[in-house]
This record gives sequence, C-alpha cells and structure tokens, in this order.
Amino acid sequence: MLITLCGGEGAGKSTQVRRLSEKLEQKGYRVVVTREPGGTAIGRKIRALLLDPANRAMVADTELFLYAADRAQHLAEVVRPALKEGKIVISDRFADSTTVYQGVARGLDPERIQRVHELVLQGLLPDITFLLDLLPEEGLSRALSQANQGTRSLDEMRFEQESLDFHRRIRQGFLALAAKETNRFCCLDAMQPQETLTDTMLLVIEERMQSRKN
Amino acid sequence: MLITLCGGEGAGKSTQVRRLSEKLEQKGYRVVVTREPGGTAIGRKIRALLLDPANRAMVADTELFLYAADRAQHLAEVVRPALKEGKIVISDRFADSTTVYQGVARGLDPERIQRVHELVLQGLLPDITFLLDLLPEEGLSRALSQANQGTRSLDEMRFEQESLDFHRRIRQGFLALAAKETNRFCCLDAMQPQETLTDTMLLVIEERMQSRKN
Repeated sequence: MLITLCGGEGAGKSTQVRRLSEKLEQKGYRVVVTREPGGTAIGRKIRALLLDPANRAMVADTELFLYAADRAQHLAEVVRPALKEGKIVISDRFADSTTVYQGVARGLDPERIQRVHELVLQGLLPDITFLLDLLPEEGLSRALSQANQGTRSLDEMRFEQESLDFHRRIRQGFLALAAKETNRFCCLDAMQPQETLTDTMLLVIEERMQSRKN
Repeated sequence: MLITLCGGEGAGKSTQVRRLSEKLEQKGYRVVVTREPGGTAIGRKIRALLLDPANRAMVADTELFLYAADRAQHLAEVVRPALKEGKIVISDRFADSTTVYQGVARGLDPERIQRVHELVLQGLLPDITFLLDLLPEEGLSRALSQANQGTRSLDEMRFEQESLDFHRRIRQGFLALAAKETNRFCCLDAMQPQETLTDTMLLVIEERMQSRKN
C-alpha cells in the first residue's frame, strides 16, 4: 500500500508521516517512510541541483524532468521494492506536488505535466493521498517559526519567500486535485490537533485495507 | 537551421562539427556550435551526475529523464534562441543518440523514449542529421588512440569499455533510425577523407537551403 501526504508548507506533513508510521508499526505493519524529492542518494544530488541558487538559469522544463528523474530513481530503488515485499510505503510528497508547484509556480501546462507523470509512474498511483489543508497564513507562520527554532532546514524554505498570493494558489491547486480524484484523496483540516489527524488517517487506512480484503 | 551529427565513438563527429562550422562561417553564415549532453552550465552538472561512477545505482529511467532535463535546458538556453536569430545551429549529438544508446544499452522501449522526446522537443526536429557511419572496430581504435594521445578526455570514454557486440548494436541502431527517417538523415561513410566528408555535408546543407527558398 502506497500512502502519500501533500499540502503547502507548514501543514505538518513530516510530523504526520512520523506519527503515522509509528502507529502503524505498533499495529504490526512493516512500514517504509520516504520523501520526494531526495528519497535516494542520487535523488539528493538531483535535489541539490534544483535548489542551488547558482542554477537560476534553469527553465521550467528542466525542473520538470529533474523531478521526473528523482521520482524514477525513488520508485525503482525505494517504493516498488518495498511494495513488492508487502510493506506500507508512506511518502512525504509525491507526484501531486510536482503537478501543483510546477503548474502554479512555473505556469506549466497541467496536461503536459500529466503526460510526464504517466511516463514516470507507469500506472502506479498512491492508494491514499492525504491532503493536509491549511490557510497559507497559518502554514507560513508555522514554517517560519520552525526555521527560527532551527527545526526546519533553510533549503526547505525555497518557496516560503514567495508571495502570500502564490501560496493561496498552491492551496487552491491541491484542493482542485483533491476534488478531481475523490477516491484517492482524503482532505484533512490541518488545524486539528495532531492526535486527531493521526487517528483519522489511521482509520481511513484501515478502512481501505478492509475494503480491499472484501 | 538545426543540423545534428550522430554516430558511434570515434567516427569523427567533433572534427566534422568544427570543420563544418569553419566552412559555413567562411561563407558568411552565422553559426553556433554546441553539443549534448552538457551544452549548458546546468547541463554539464547533469552530465557529471550521469558519468559519476558513484551513481552506479542509477536506473535506466533516471538516466532517460536526466538526458531529457539536459536537452530541455539546451533547447531553451542555446538552440531555440540561436535559431530565432537566424543562426545555423550544429549540435554534436542530439535526441537520436538517446534513442539509440538508451534503447540498446539499457533496453528501454523505443516507443517510450519517443514519447519523452515529444515532450522535450515539442515539435522541434533537426533539419538535417548526419550519421557518420563506421565499423565499430575502426571507431574504437580511433577513440582509443585519441585517448592515449590525450586528445580525448577519459570521461567521454564511458561506452568504450563495452563489448564489441554492444558497439555493433549501437551502429545498427543508428542505421535503423536513418532508414526510417530518410528525409532528415544523411548517412555518410566515415572512412572517407575528412575533406570529402566536410564537402559533402556542405553540399547537402546548401541544397536543403536552396530547396527551402524555392
């Protein structure tokens, strides 16, 4: 089972990935926690290229294919082998983040991004995608305070410097995706207490497992 | 006008690119000489990732998308701007090399590679592609003696260590491409003297220009 988390900055994805994996392991499931971009050694080098300010001449298409390369390696090295062994894979961000960020930030044609996804994913889709939805004002203030406390690294702050309007469009992008794929997406209000969020996610996951068995 | 050169190792592509650009410039044309992979600063960083032996865990798909990223940057930064200014662009290798090397060396589905090309090129095809065709035995011995003389860098020798059978399949791959796209390809026997090769290429280019005007 492939579970992915998405949403804007500061929505609590990393925290929920950690909490969720702990709970699932306590229940006896074998869990692999991973992330995009940079879920592999090669992926981290690709991510470094993407984040290096020296590469500001990089065009939108180059970014799109670098994310595709990172994802291809991630699928081959981490995701597919773990799924094959019957493990639950939880990924902090996945293809949906490319769709929303590259679409909104770079103005890339969503249909074009979709065609790249099809080539990379080759039919693999997350079983459940949790969208942690939050007002951008709240998310940014959380992310900023984490950065000030040193619990969030600066290279993850790439998009934090964008305008509030940008982050509103990112949020709308995720909500629009979730509205289009209601079977896969589960949209959660990220203002809820952490415990409530984790418990809800667990419920959704176990329900999905149950319905598979039947 | 976009002119590309392709073929196996040691066929004399770099030499002919240089000679051809000199001749064209003498005739008053404005020429841009470039190459793939690594025709841009960002592309050279991507190329370094592809060549680094530390990245041997890299899967075929990751390679495919890294070449796509290199090409996307190359098109945006070098090729399209030069074509827009009415210049002749001569590229040492282009998409065909990905088709043949990734298809033969990595066994990637040609149709899959083609779909990536379509996304990257967005309709841009070379006006003429010169295939410098050579027996692999001859090409390898040329490349090796250049490496020994220090006129060929070692990181370009990546595929030289493959078996002769591999290089035969590469040759067949290029010949098969040329046979499929007879309008675009011009296949030349690379055993001919350098002068003859350059003169033939010039003739083909000027004929194509003439037929365009009419």
